[in-house]
Formats: sequence, structure tokens, C-alpha cells
Amino acid sequence: MNMDVRLIGLDWGTSSLRAYLYDADGNVVASRQQPWGIRHLPDGGFASALQAITSGWPLCTVIAAGMVGSRQGWLEVPYIEVPADAPSIAQGRQRVTASADRELWIVPGLRQREPANVMRGEETQIVGALAQQPQHRANARFVLPGTHSKWATVVDGRIVAYDTVMTGEIYALLMKHSILGAGVSPENTRSFPNDAFVAGLRNAKESAAGAFSRLFSARALMLNGELDPSDVPDFLSGLLIGEEFRIALLRDHGNSSAPLCLIGEPSLCDRYMVAAAYFGYAPPRVIGDAAAQGLWQLALAAGLVARATPHLFSGADA
Amino acid sequence: MNMDVRLIGLDWGTSSLRAYLYDADGNVVASRQQPWGIRHLPDGGFASALQAITSGWPLCTVIAAGMVGSRQGWLEVPYIEVPADAPSIAQGRQRVTASADRELWIVPGLRQREPANVMRGEETQIVGALAQQPQHRANARFVLPGTHSKWATVVDGRIVAYDTVMTGEIYALLMKHSILGAGVSPENTRSFPNDAFVAGLRNAKESAAGAFSRLFSARALMLNGELDPSDVPDFLSGLLIGEEFRIALLRDHGNSSAPLCLIGEPSLCDRYMVAAAYFGYAPPRVIGDAAAQGLWQLALAAGLVARATPHLFSGADA
Repeated sequence: MNMDVRLIGLDWGTSSLRAYLYDADGNVVASRQQPWGIRHLPDGGFASALQAITSGWPLCTVIAAGMVGSRQGWLEVPYIEVPADAPSIAQGRQRVTASADRELWIVPGLRQREPANVMRGEETQIVGALAQQPQHRANARFVLPGTHSKWATVVDGRIVAYDTVMTGEIYALLMKHSILGAGVSPENTRSFPNDAFVAGLRNAKESAAGAFSRLFSARALMLNGELDPSDVPDFLSGLLIGEEFRIALLRDHGNSSAPLCLIGEPSLCDRYMVAAAYFGYAPPRVIGDAAAQGLWQLALAAGLVARATPHLFSGADA
Repeated sequence: MNMDVRLIGLDWGTSSLRAYLYDADGNVVASRQQPWGIRHLPDGGFASALQAITSGWPLCTVIAAGMVGSRQGWLEVPYIEVPADAPSIAQGRQRVTASADRELWIVPGLRQREPANVMRGEETQIVGALAQQPQHRANARFVLPGTHSKWATVVDGRIVAYDTVMTGEIYALLMKHSILGAGVSPENTRSFPNDAFVAGLRNAKESAAGAFSRLFSARALMLNGELDPSDVPDFLSGLLIGEEFRIALLRDHGNSSAPLCLIGEPSLCDRYMVAAAYFGYAPPRVIGDAAAQGLWQLALAAGLVARATPHLFSGADA
């Protein structure tokens, strides 16, 4: 570890803020997290949040990714279009005057014209994942499960296309506000994986027309006594995650054999591992720390940092 | 009109109660409506609601359809299985002891085993529509738009299969609680039809993978300035109604040439007329008063009423 610190990276989303301090080799030497998403800022707003989360750290260059660059963020950084890679993303960065004594750069998100789609933050995680798994640069699909799950296709090191499926948000809406969640405890105490989750996957897979045509099955199966109310959450989870895979098979951008890589919370990734097997995929690789790695890679691509130690043999066949 | 009244019919759903008084020929001679759905009963419950809504009417036999026969209703009447027709539905009726001096019968809903599905009330509307449009007995698809839209295939006078799409409920959830409705007025003051609705239909039609893969487009198009916030409600309406037609084309139960018949609120049916044309269907027939007609037909099939006047020539080729 090289204690000559060179960079602070911020993964600044809607609901949380993570800060990373890097040494000159790109190793994370310290990290902090606060619930200061762009909708939950402390008094004093963005500048105060930055000051507080980096308190006591050296005054080095800062690079940020995520919703901090959105219209509701610190500075709206225009999207760049797909296909995109680390250099083109880095080139789209914009400078914010955070204070007189330090530079802060926000990287852009990615826009896709047809079908219309946007991401902010996930592009940085994919850049980080590619740095960790360079063998996937040629051709892979990166799956980022969550509120708005992203499925991004990478070819020759570039993000060429992606889909967004509002899985997490729709799941929460159905459980909390719909007839399907009525009389059902949102607390899911079932062990995982279980039959209800697999039944949901099966309904998604067998449905030529997609999950919208099967959502009401959760109600019908419950009324028929074939689905216990306590199993409804896992059934819906399986149905909606299965829907992502059904969509993915139909929209593989000519990459049906591309390996899957998962970037996300371990408990959520567990569900996607089971779904991937059910839909006939080889076990996806699960990638951690992608945002921290991606911020460093984008700083490198932007020339905000340089490698202190020449990595003469990195990536070589030696 | 024959003022010798013979029957009271109740269309008793989750949110409203409609009562019809029939003469001996099956003409509706009076009707009333109250917001006394099974979840909004007046004090005294079902019996009081019945008493109040039929107050001053003769004490004749009562037939009821809808959620009144569900587990949360007056009496749970077991579903009958598809395929089903008026005689088999009528045969599944069960008697409720409403009071000492009158008979009340509740008809069953329909269950489909695979994919799992249930309906209560719509089967009665379809029976009524078939009585009004006997030329559609051979082969037609009946579309009942709403909170839980139903698409039922009729062959040889029998309901053979159906789908439920939670269009109305999902639309309301998205507008009220999701990111897609954030900053968007739920009041839609646009004239109809409009470009945003058609753009929604186009997104559904062009999407091989279905509306789940395009929901987030509403957000992306809005952020791109291609969709005005005031257009989001119509875009989502078009996307979700278009999804019903996309599903319908994939699940036509071997009846791709069957004519469509619409049963529902006129303003909602207008949207389905536009969508039907967009998806290449001949203009659907719009059928009104289907529930009132269906209740009479089921009472006839059950032998609860008999035609006072012999209709010697009805249905004959004379």
C-alpha cells in the first residue's frame, strides 16, 4: 500500500453517499458511508456533505459519479451516448466549484436513444468491473440488480446497449399498495431458495407474453390455496426477477453466449444466481467494490491521477 | 314493457352495488346504484345493504354476481372451471338466507387452472353480452377493461380461456407512488387521442420483450425533453393498454381472427378502440348494460324466472 494519497472518489446516489480515499496505486485506503443521498442532504447541501464525509482526509482531487450529476444533483452533467467506454465517459466529466482549494469532477451518465434509456452511476460500476475482470471486455452482460435493474451489454470494452427493468420498485409497489400484497406480510422469513421463488421463475419462463400477463396469478394461486400468503413475496420476487431474464433472452443484442456478471448486494445476487441457473445461464461471476474501482479507472482515464508505480507487467502474458 | 316484475339482479362488486328490477320479459324497469361495494358496506352489512337498495321494490327473487360471492363476500360460492357457459354458471349458484321472505342466489365466478386465474362478475357480463350479440357466440374475444382487465375467448357459446392484466391497478400505482409519476400531475387534461398515448402504444408494440422492458422509457423520454411531464399519464396509459394487446396477440387461444367486443366505461373503451386500430384489429363492438342482461340470462338458465310471454319466433329463421 502506498500512503501517498492521490484521489477521493464519491459514489453519490439518490439515497446514500460513499466516499473512498485512494493511494497512488489505486488501492482504497479508507472509505466512509453516509445516508446523504441527493434527496437526503444534510444542512448546507452538497458542499457540506462533501466537507463532512472527507473530514480529516487530505485535500486531493475528487471524482464523483451517480445521481449527483443529475438535474436534481449538484451539477447537471449531460449524458453521453452509448456506445461508451472509460475514456469517453471520463471525457464527459464536468468541474464543480466545491471550494477554492480543491477540484471536484462529476462524470456523466449514459443515454441510449432507442429504446430511450438513461443510467447514472452504473456506468462507473461497469467500468470498475471491467478493470477487475478484463477477460470480460470482449463480450459480456453486466447485470446490476436493484430498484431499477440494469442489463448492459459490453463488446470490445464498450457499453453498447442496455435495458432498465423497474424490478425493485415494482416489487415494492405491489407488496405495499396492490391487491397482491393485501393480507401478506412484507417480512419474508422463508429460507432461500424456496419453492415459491422457483414457481415465480417458472411462471415468468413459461409465459410467452411476459410477467404482466402472470402477475394476477399470485392472487389466483393464493385464492386456490396453492400459494400460502407467506409465500407471495417470494413468488413475486421470482416472477419479476424471472421477467428480467425472459426480457434478457429476447434482447441479447446478438450476444446470447456472452457470460453474465452480477454487480450488487450479495443477498440480491443470490436470487439472480438461482434465476440464471433456471434460465440456463452458466453461473454468473459476482463482482464487488465495482464503484470504487470504477471511480479510480475514470480518474485515470481523465488524467486526474497517474500511476505512481509503473505496472510494467500488468495485463501482459508473462 | 310488462310491469309484472319477476326478478331483482345485483351486480355487487368491491366498490359498488347496482340493483336492477326486471319485468317478466327481462326488461329493466328500475335501477339503483350505491357505493356499497363489499368493502364499503353500510351498518348492518350485506342484509341491510340489500334491504336499503331494494326498498319499496316487490319482494321477488334476487340473483347476485360479483365479489359478493368471494371469501370476503356474503357467502363464498366456489368457482366453477372453464370452459363455462350460462347453464353451467347458473348451476353453480348458491342460496343465501337473506331474510325469511325472499330468496337470494349468488352465482359463481370462473376459475382457470393454467395459467392460474379467477374472475367474479365478468362472467355475468360476458353472458349478457352474448345474449345481446348472439352472432358472437361462435367465436369472439370479450375485453373488459379496468383495474384488472379481462380478455376472455368465447367459442361455441362457452368461455374457454381468459387472461387478466392488472392494467388499471398498475397504472394507478405508477402514477401515484413510482418515480414515473414524480412531478407529474395525475389530472390528465389532454384531449384524446393524442400523440403521447400513441407513443405509448408504439413502445408496447415495438417491444418484443413487453412493457416491463419499456416502463423506464417514460422517465428517460421525460429527462431527454422528448416527453412533457403532462404527457406522462397518456404515455403510460398507452404503454399499458398496448401491453394488453401485445399479450393478446401472443395468447389468442387459436382465435387470431375472432372479433373483439368491448364491455366497459365509454371513456375507457375509447382508449381500447384506438389501441385496437393501432394493433390491426377491426373496430370492436362496444356493449353496454352487459351485467343487467347477464343477471337476467343466468336467472333464466337457473329456472328462477320463466318468460311470461312465449317468444315463439325469437331466434328462429322466420
